[in-house]
Formats: sequence, structure tokens, C-alpha cells
Amino acid sequence: MSKPLSAPVWPTLFAASATASMGIQAQLIHTLRKALLAGRLPQDSRLPASRMLAKDLAISRSSVEAAYAQLEAEGYLERRAGSGSFVAFTPQLRPSKKTASASAQLSQRGQGIVDAGGCRDTTLPSLAFNAGQPDTRAFPHALWQKLMQQRWSKSGAALASYGPAQGLPELQLAIAGYLAQARGVDCQPEQILILNSSQQALQMIAQLLIDPEDTVWLEDPGYLGARNAMLAAGAQIVPVPVDQEGFNTGISQTLAAPRLIYTTPSHQYPLGIAMSLPRRMTLIAQAAAHQAWIIEDDYDSEFYYDQRPLPALQGLDQQGRVIYVGTFSKVLFPSLRLAYIVLPPALVPAFITARIAFDGHSAQFLQAVTADFITQGHFATHLRQMRLLYRSRRDLLLEKLQPIADVIKPVNTAAGLQFALQLSKGLEKPWTASGTTAGLALRPLSAFYQKEAKTEGWLMGYASLSNEQIIRASETLIKSYQEK
Amino acid sequence: MSKPLSAPVWPTLFAASATASMGIQAQLIHTLRKALLAGRLPQDSRLPASRMLAKDLAISRSSVEAAYAQLEAEGYLERRAGSGSFVAFTPQLRPSKKTASASAQLSQRGQGIVDAGGCRDTTLPSLAFNAGQPDTRAFPHALWQKLMQQRWSKSGAALASYGPAQGLPELQLAIAGYLAQARGVDCQPEQILILNSSQQALQMIAQLLIDPEDTVWLEDPGYLGARNAMLAAGAQIVPVPVDQEGFNTGISQTLAAPRLIYTTPSHQYPLGIAMSLPRRMTLIAQAAAHQAWIIEDDYDSEFYYDQRPLPALQGLDQQGRVIYVGTFSKVLFPSLRLAYIVLPPALVPAFITARIAFDGHSAQFLQAVTADFITQGHFATHLRQMRLLYRSRRDLLLEKLQPIADVIKPVNTAAGLQFALQLSKGLEKPWTASGTTAGLALRPLSAFYQKEAKTEGWLMGYASLSNEQIIRASETLIKSYQEK
Repeated sequence: MSKPLSAPVWPTLFAASATASMGIQAQLIHTLRKALLAGRLPQDSRLPASRMLAKDLAISRSSVEAAYAQLEAEGYLERRAGSGSFVAFTPQLRPSKKTASASAQLSQRGQGIVDAGGCRDTTLPSLAFNAGQPDTRAFPHALWQKLMQQRWSKSGAALASYGPAQGLPELQLAIAGYLAQARGVDCQPEQILILNSSQQALQMIAQLLIDPEDTVWLEDPGYLGARNAMLAAGAQIVPVPVDQEGFNTGISQTLAAPRLIYTTPSHQYPLGIAMSLPRRMTLIAQAAAHQAWIIEDDYDSEFYYDQRPLPALQGLDQQGRVIYVGTFSKVLFPSLRLAYIVLPPALVPAFITARIAFDGHSAQFLQAVTADFITQGHFATHLRQMRLLYRSRRDLLLEKLQPIADVIKPVNTAAGLQFALQLSKGLEKPWTASGTTAGLALRPLSAFYQKEAKTEGWLMGYASLSNEQIIRASETLIKSYQEK
Repeated sequence: MSKPLSAPVWPTLFAASATASMGIQAQLIHTLRKALLAGRLPQDSRLPASRMLAKDLAISRSSVEAAYAQLEAEGYLERRAGSGSFVAFTPQLRPSKKTASASAQLSQRGQGIVDAGGCRDTTLPSLAFNAGQPDTRAFPHALWQKLMQQRWSKSGAALASYGPAQGLPELQLAIAGYLAQARGVDCQPEQILILNSSQQALQMIAQLLIDPEDTVWLEDPGYLGARNAMLAAGAQIVPVPVDQEGFNTGISQTLAAPRLIYTTPSHQYPLGIAMSLPRRMTLIAQAAAHQAWIIEDDYDSEFYYDQRPLPALQGLDQQGRVIYVGTFSKVLFPSLRLAYIVLPPALVPAFITARIAFDGHSAQFLQAVTADFITQGHFATHLRQMRLLYRSRRDLLLEKLQPIADVIKPVNTAAGLQFALQLSKGLEKPWTASGTTAGLALRPLSAFYQKEAKTEGWLMGYASLSNEQIIRASETLIKSYQEK
């Protein structure tokens, strides 16, 4: 049980924030949200009981209760029956570039890495409508705990020492089996390299395969984490437009020869398009002609609701040019820190050496528990359940957005943890502002474009939101339309 | 329980290996060791019962028993009472550079990373006399399991989502407290960045602070993992000799101005020297004069037997030039994958951004359990127990090497997981060959020098070896002296 926050926090919290024009309840919500966003209330710490806080602040207990309820719906707090309200939120304190370069004397390369930035798409908690977030509450925590216990008893000691850089053989085997069956990936377990995250995969690929000034084709709009990894490696990025069939191979054939091509064929990020089969074949042929590598980032294809996704590009490739990237962050839970790549055989030795040089290997025990989770059949069960859950949330969100159907257009809603919501022209900027003020996490589609944005809208995450959060956040979004 | 190896492995294993000149028992050991080294027998798999194997091979059961006993003493096998003999060994399949560069089309940078190589110092299992290995059997596994259970029940779900890139605040706090008290490190918890391994720390530091052609001062002899990280970053390495006071600041003041200085002041790697206080003060002044950063790699200072080590260099530095690197790989267990750096405040924002860009953050749950282990006092207890255990092993090894005292000289044996054993001139090469043939893991000191080796000898790991292993391996070493 967490300790309650120490009493002295509260007076200082409320001292400087009395805004006369706000009602008591709104003021309380505002003050608490600001403190949470600033990281002044640590994750998992317990808030004062509503009765106590009401007494301290000389306001009604029902105001406190209502404020806590609102903040819970927004994802900042979690109320646990019988034990109180807890902070469910840790802000990502991302420093400004100015501070980073002040007296830090970074190398030019280091400054380039910092300027390219990290991948900020997945670092916010499950506020509506943040994208890329699975529902970690729906994970079978008790089962996982049981598997951890069994695994530690059986081989905790045996797995405590340094392990193989390429990953635990059992997990390589389990992943190869799953990918062959579910994604049509054609590989030997030895081609699988276990990593900490798909961001690590993108960084390693960029470092090992790209030299400064090398051309990289990137989907436009596209995934910022990939763009940043390529920029950090010094790549010359050539944006390739996306249409209703995905990556536009008609246009790409007219572009500068690439060394590397980054794609999300199953579920284009952020627009959600599935790349058509003819385009896939053409892209593979283009890569072969240019002797370029293709990164197939298959980040959430497990979550399909209306039809199965096409098998992976990797399975179509006869030339060994596709590097398949998968992650457990979304199908299990993000802080597990396990992802993997399927490498063409020619690249395996270099990547193993680089993994040793970079950071050794991933935690063996967690690899073993993950392998058990898959081979004992729990993974398939969990995916089935999450598909049902996320589908129901998608359906609810689509239903709740009906009242503003004339100004919005949800597209490619058949799969994933989010969908793109297109907006009528001119709405993105003012509406994002009013929605953000109202406490929503809105991610404008324009941010994913290299240059000029062709689509206005947002990437709408729904998978991690409870029904109540979806309902309330939809109401807030609709209300903020009037206030924009 | 692991499944026994499938029967068909055995005939193929022995078919090609009959060497007429060997006795049955030696032949069995040779064949098994070769298969283990080649990775043909997976870690944790069960070997045939001695009775069965004896029957299959038509040899006496006592030969099989003796062979198993020998391989157990060498660290390849583990015999568990009542359940049989198990493989306790996974080889690191480190591919040759030739294969890696064949048709892999790496970038120039990538080829540089692969050519620099990984850090191979710590990838072998606990064979005598491999260095850098803690005794993972002596870790309090049951206690750790209890802490994992408690932590998962309490906040497994809360810690499942993405976490802060700099690390879990609780762990930052616990480490800061420990370092202040035990190592004289002067820092705020916010200066601590949690990483996966000290190798990751060295890579990040090199990437962010070094540009190609920048000068880096490196202890000579020195740690290969550091050298490789600096080479991969394109650094110009300037070796700085080590004498009986450690890093030779008298010589370094005559050398090209560095951008970065790598040191192991508590326990010089590999020679084990503790850097003197005057040298420490001079080195800090030199770094300040050159506006260079110092890496203080404090990889195993927790294990001191005869006197406490000097407080960390970091605590002496008034200019914010020292980056302190610590790891839990040796004080807890290697496959935990947790290490940390203490950064000068000016560098914190850049490193946080880089961590997001590189691989996000470390597994939150394992960070939390580690924090609990420290704050509940188990860490201090464990360190005390390990100091006693490792000291007794060091004493035993020194005693068992007495018979060859005229040709060896153990130096700086007061601390660590290993000590340097100096050899009379001309012995290193032939004796390493005969010792290796006899199944020992001997790491020549000459391998740690940039150019010409000034000392012949080996780095002798003892911490992870049982008394029986120490006795047997010492006998083997002495025997191999005659056979060299």
C-alpha cells in the first residue's frame, strides 16, 4: 500500500491557484490537473480522503468527490474500492532543446540525436484520446504473476547470469511459431533478434545500415519515431505519399534510389490504411532493384476487428530484403520492454555483434515468462479477448461521435488501437486548442507530415479507455467544438 | 522440469569423435565439452542418466559418473539431487567478422560498430577462471521471488504502462541514497539515469559526447568494452599507462587534449590498482583544464575484502565533469539488465532525450523490485554476505596457487571478482594454450593492452566458482604448467 501524500503538499498546491472566476469544483480539478501534469504528485501515491480534503479546504465533500471522479475519467487518478484514490499518471518531463544544448557540450552527433528527438508518440498515459496505448488494466495480471512464480522457481537461478545476445532460444522459437501461423512470416528462429523496444530496433537498423546522406524512403504522413531514428543516423529523408492503397509505389519509382525503405503495410501509421497486395509486390521489386532494405513495422496488426490483415510483407519477399519489426509493448504491456526483429540471414551476425556492443541483451527472466505465456496458449486467448474489448470500444466511440458526423470523418477504423479522424478544413488548429484546454490529449494528423499536411484531423486512441472515459471524453470533444 | 534431450542426439554426438589414443573417460569428457561449446546441448536440458548413457555406449557407469563430475567442476553441467544432470552453459555464438560483412551491405558506420566488436569480457559462463562473474547461485532467489510477488500484487498493473525515460523515481532515490552513503557520490536523484547495462552507458556517452577524430584518454591496459564503444563512435584513442598509483597523470599531462577520459579508479580494470588520491585530484584538474568529461566506471567496488575503497571520484569533482557509471549486474545478477549513470546536471536533459530515442526506458517492474530490495535493507545484507563469500574464495584460490608461487605473482588481490595474476616472462602464451586445452577459461592480460603488453599474466576470476571448482581448476592449472 502506498503512503498517503504528506500533508505539507496540499497548502502549497492550492495557495497560488485560486482563480476567482472559477467555481470551487472546477478550481479543484484545474489545480489538481496542473499539479499532476507538472509531476508534483508521484505515480501511485494516495490522495487525501475526500472527507479530509474537504475539511482542510473548507469546501463540500461532494465537490471533492466530483473532482476526483472527473480526474479519474480523464485517466489521471484511479480509485480503488476501500483504499482510496491514487495517482495513475506520470508526466514525461521532456526538456526543451534550449536547455539540452546550453552548457552541455554535446558532440555534433549527440546534438543531432537530441535534435531529432525521441519518439513521443507513446509516452503519455492513457488519457483520452492518446494513441498507441493498450489497456494495461485488461492484461491478465494474476495469470502473469503465476507464470512468473513458476518460472522463477523452475529456472530463476539458471537464467540469472549473462544470456545470449540474440535472445532466449525458447522465446525465439515461440515468436517464430506465432509469426508463421498468424502473420505468414517465413523465418527460422535464429533470424529473430530479441530487443527492448521497436524504437531500439529502428535505431539499430538505422545505425547499422545507413550512412550520413543515404536516402531513406519514408511514408508521408508517417511514424515520427522512425523519422527521428533515420535523422539521428544522418539520413536524407525522401517522403513517399500514401493514398487509399497505402505506400504509393507509383510515385516512389520516380524518386532517388533508397538505401532503406520504412513502411507500416498492415496498418499505415497514422492513417490506418492496409497496403494493397499489388503495391506490396511492387515495393519488394523496387527494393530488390535498388538493393535496398525494407523495414516492415508491424506494430499493432494483432488487433483487427472486421477482417484478418494481409500476411506480412516479409513472407512475400524472396530476396531477403525485408526486416520485420514486432513488439510486445502493445499485445502484452509496454513496460515489459520486449520487442523483436526478423532479420534476413545475411544480417544476423552483424546485428548480434551490435547488440553486444550496444547493451548486451534483454532481461532473461522476462523473456522466459513471455515464452511461457505464448507456448501455454495464453497469448492467443489474450489477443482474442483484447480484440473483442477494443472492438466494443471502437464501436462505442464511433457511436458517441455521431452527433458531430457532419464535421468529422473516421477513416480506416477496421483495426488497431486508434483510428484517424478527418476534420473539415480549418478545424484542426482551433479545435485542438479548445479540446486540449478541456483536458483531452489530441494528436493532430498534420504533425505526422514531413512538409505540408494533406489531411486535417486527429489520431484517436480508444483501446486503453474505459467506456465511461469514452463517453465523457466524447462529450468533452463535442462541447469543445462549440468552444473552439 | 526440463525435458531430457531426445535420444537421437547421442549417437551423432559420439559417432565422429572416437579418438583412439584417449581413455574412455577422457574421450567422453572431450566429446561432451565440444558439443557444449558448440551449443549443441541447450542450456537447462537434462542429460541422460549415467546408467542409461553407460548402457547406450557400452561403457562403465563409473566412467560416465566421473565425466559428469568433471564437467560439473568445470561449470558446464549442474547436478541436481534426485533429478539428474543439466546443461548449465550456453555458448556465445560470436560470428566471425568475415561472415558479418559478406553480403550484409552494412553502412560504413555499421561496419565500424561490428569491427569494434562487442564487449566479450562478461559473456562466458562461470567457468574457471572467467572474470567479471558474480555467483548467481548465492543470490537470495527466494527473497527476490517474494519481493516480485509483493510488488506485482501491489503495483504490477500501475507499472505496466510506459514509464519515465530517466527511470523509476523510487529507484533513482534508492540509488542516490546508497551512493551517497557507500561511495561518497554527491548527487540529486534527478541526476541518475537508469539504463540496461554499463555497456549501454558507455555507448550513450560515446555517441552523445564524442565526434569522429575526438581524442579519448583510455587506461592502458584497459577495459575492452569501453575501447570498443569509443572506437564505434570514431574516437582517436590515446592510451595512458597505469602504474602502482593507477592512471598516470604525470604522463597524461603531456598528451593531446582529450574530449573524454575513461577511468576505473576504484579497481583498475584489469590490474586491480586503486588510484591514489593525489592522482585523482590531478585528473579532475586536467579534465577541467581541457573541458573534458571523465567516465568513472565503478564496476565492482562493492566487493572489497581488506579495506574500504576510496570514495568515488565523482564526490571530489566540483566542476560537474565526472559521469559515474554503476551496474547491478555484479551486485545483484547479470540478466536483471539494470545499470545507472550519475550525470552532471548540464547533461541530464540531453541524455533523457537520447534514451527516449534509443530504446525508451528499462523494465519498470524490475526497477521497482530492485528499489524494494535496496530500501528494505536486503541489498546491504546481500553485499555483506557476498563480501564474506568472495573473500573466502579469493583466500582459497591464493592458497591453492601456492605450489607454483615461484612462477606466478598475484597482484592487487584486495577487492573485486578477480585479480591479476602476473606470470614470469615468456609463460603467458604457452601456458594459456595448455590451460585452455585442459578446459580452463584463461584471459591473458596482454589482450587488454592497446599496443605492446607490459605485463604477462591472466585475469583470474574466482567469485563465481565453488570451492570444489577452485580446487580442481587450480590443480588443472598447475598440471597444465607441466604440459605447456
